[in-house]
Amino acid sequence: MKKVGVAILGLGVVGGGTYKILTEHREFYRKTQDVDIVVESVLELNRERALSLGVPEEKIASNIAEVVCNPDVNIVVEVIGGVGVAREFVLSALNAGKTVVTSNKELVCKFSHELERAAKRQNAGLYFEASCVGGVPIIRTLLDGLQANHITSMMGIINGTTNYILTKMSEEGTSYEDALKQAQALGYAEANPTADVEGFDAAYKLSILSSLAFHTKVPFAKIYREGISSVTQEDIAFGKELGYVLKLLAIGKQTEHGIEVRVHPTYVKKEHPLASVNDSFNAVYLTGDAVEDVMLFGRGAGALPTGSAIVSDIIYAATHSENRYSTFKNNATAEKDVKFVNDFKSAYYLRLTVADKAGMLSKISAIFGRHNISIVEMIQKAAIQDGKVPLILITHVTKELAIRNAVEKINALEGVASVDTVLRVVS
Amino acid sequence: MKKVGVAILGLGVVGGGTYKILTEHREFYRKTQDVDIVVESVLELNRERALSLGVPEEKIASNIAEVVCNPDVNIVVEVIGGVGVAREFVLSALNAGKTVVTSNKELVCKFSHELERAAKRQNAGLYFEASCVGGVPIIRTLLDGLQANHITSMMGIINGTTNYILTKMSEEGTSYEDALKQAQALGYAEANPTADVEGFDAAYKLSILSSLAFHTKVPFAKIYREGISSVTQEDIAFGKELGYVLKLLAIGKQTEHGIEVRVHPTYVKKEHPLASVNDSFNAVYLTGDAVEDVMLFGRGAGALPTGSAIVSDIIYAATHSENRYSTFKNNATAEKDVKFVNDFKSAYYLRLTVADKAGMLSKISAIFGRHNISIVEMIQKAAIQDGKVPLILITHVTKELAIRNAVEKINALEGVASVDTVLRVVS
Repeated sequence: MKKVGVAILGLGVVGGGTYKILTEHREFYRKTQDVDIVVESVLELNRERALSLGVPEEKIASNIAEVVCNPDVNIVVEVIGGVGVAREFVLSALNAGKTVVTSNKELVCKFSHELERAAKRQNAGLYFEASCVGGVPIIRTLLDGLQANHITSMMGIINGTTNYILTKMSEEGTSYEDALKQAQALGYAEANPTADVEGFDAAYKLSILSSLAFHTKVPFAKIYREGISSVTQEDIAFGKELGYVLKLLAIGKQTEHGIEVRVHPTYVKKEHPLASVNDSFNAVYLTGDAVEDVMLFGRGAGALPTGSAIVSDIIYAATHSENRYSTFKNNATAEKDVKFVNDFKSAYYLRLTVADKAGMLSKISAIFGRHNISIVEMIQKAAIQDGKVPLILITHVTKELAIRNAVEKINALEGVASVDTVLRVVS
Repeated sequence: MKKVGVAILGLGVVGGGTYKILTEHREFYRKTQDVDIVVESVLELNRERALSLGVPEEKIASNIAEVVCNPDVNIVVEVIGGVGVAREFVLSALNAGKTVVTSNKELVCKFSHELERAAKRQNAGLYFEASCVGGVPIIRTLLDGLQANHITSMMGIINGTTNYILTKMSEEGTSYEDALKQAQALGYAEANPTADVEGFDAAYKLSILSSLAFHTKVPFAKIYREGISSVTQEDIAFGKELGYVLKLLAIGKQTEHGIEVRVHPTYVKKEHPLASVNDSFNAVYLTGDAVEDVMLFGRGAGALPTGSAIVSDIIYAATHSENRYSTFKNNATAEKDVKFVNDFKSAYYLRLTVADKAGMLSKISAIFGRHNISIVEMIQKAAIQDGKVPLILITHVTKELAIRNAVEKINALEGVASVDTVLRVVS
């Protein structure tokens, strides 16, 4: 039976989960996978933490050199996070010929070219299933399950924190601020929630997933990003009235015009399979030219779900002799002939505050008309205050720039109307 | 670049789809997978059909020997179906050392031991992603994506025909007979619909999926099977009133008592992710001890979705040098120490017709009490005819045998009540 030695860098939530899965399932993997996986080393500055998880004292390394020079270690698991020491340690491990399994989305997003080059040079493996959508095997699916397809579209709820916040706001009428506090109390959101609520985390993952789906590096900088921190209870409620649920979607499309990638709060028709993905659950909805529609749903985070992805990568690495690399060719950027689309198309939700006087609607309509924007649905509410009424519009699919220009023109109509909210809609 | 020659046995719906995908994507696979896949041979008695799909005359083989003796053929795709010539041809191909990719669930369910033995002897590959749930990469997920987990439970909507029929009955109030006719008109159901509507097709797939999930052969004969042909509009409507949707579920569980496997119409709470899997869509909802809940959703059938699974298997075989076999050890039966549970536990839906006289309910309640069955919910309708009223009950989780015994006792209470429907419920 093949024996595989593993080192774990960082025994935080995910590292601890990984250690637990590996030690408790050792006999199970011997029986079902014909491989004996042994944790040979851990690198964790907090020795108490390591000891409390049951790590034998002699397996706690003092520095990275001890890990990468250990001949019993074949696979190094990096669950430190960030692009500081994590990057340095991963490169050390790869340069020493160790296969690396990482959950680090920021590292893979920003430095995949560097890591893959190092891995190839040493014929080491590089696996990062756990970097995207927790336990859901979305990367394996893209690499080994749907590779027969041109993937044309990908829409994902790939950040658990924001999905928890939006679910609370939608189902319980909670304000953004209170929902964020609850998420922090439950450990779903960090004290500084920026990476989650402003869409950075989702954008790192979208960069990785769309690079794999579209077979070219999609750099982080190409992703249009808008978070949820300015989402209001009011807009969630109006959306509901129109049959929509608001989700932070990561969208990737490959069309004849090029690749478009964006993360923003989006209204989804309540019948769409993504609309019922709630709380901290995640899902990715893919469309391929042969397979048509496929959705993968599951836990996007957590010690054991993310540990499941890491250990599945370890087993895959241990039971396959080739190191299959990503198909995005080691580059930091896309190839020169790849185009990115900025002026993407979408339907839109607009909330305006309009002066309650005759002729206002015709002025606004005229602006939409001049920008070739047509309206599918409209709700006008009874006057609320100061002689102004809220007006909610849903547009047909139109171009982003047309909407921006029209909004600018409407806001310039002084005393007539202001556009308070612009959100995108998928049907 | 590696060149791989493919032969396709049978150019029906799926074979035609596979041919189309392979020929139209050849350049795409050269570019993204670094492999040149060429259809070298097809075996199709209807030469006109083959020619109309664009197969060059010289590539149409006259018999299986021509295919398996062709040195340019590395991978043989079997999409004939059934266990007659398909079995013979697959064995010929494996014995000639060709890797086989098949969509044939009945063949894999009944003869996996024989096929795997032949494959191993010749160091040939055996792939069958397309045998279960069309384009959804559920087999790859079990083998390479969730292998870190003890899978404890699997619930699937894995037959498109019955899901189409039940969706029509539920959403449009169609009768079973009319919904079946519509499914036949659309090509979703065969002229003889038995394999689908009586749950054979789902049971073949459940045998394959649960064997992979539970790491032991789960023979077809161990699966409790009940179809949808006696499902009534009435029960669907009553279920709806109680917040349930009726689905044909394939259920596999691995508990401390053993493995339980069953296919039967089942009420699912309308909030459950499986409840909104409609029409001919399929889904599998899995629970693993590390990953928690995961669902895969997509097209369960069709030329291109199933072709996607076949071609993904071809690419996997072409780009991985090991032939990874299933983990169920070449047996026709489970290992001796594996137990199967027949007296499984479930909640139940019962529809009774009860004489509208005093004391009836207490007689029935007494029988439930004696069998340790407790009731969660009850609807009694106004009298309809002959002084009888329908009574709908949902029980707490109880044992199958307890329900069967109680039903027998109630039916024996002459003039009091009859049990018209017994269906299982998952919450």
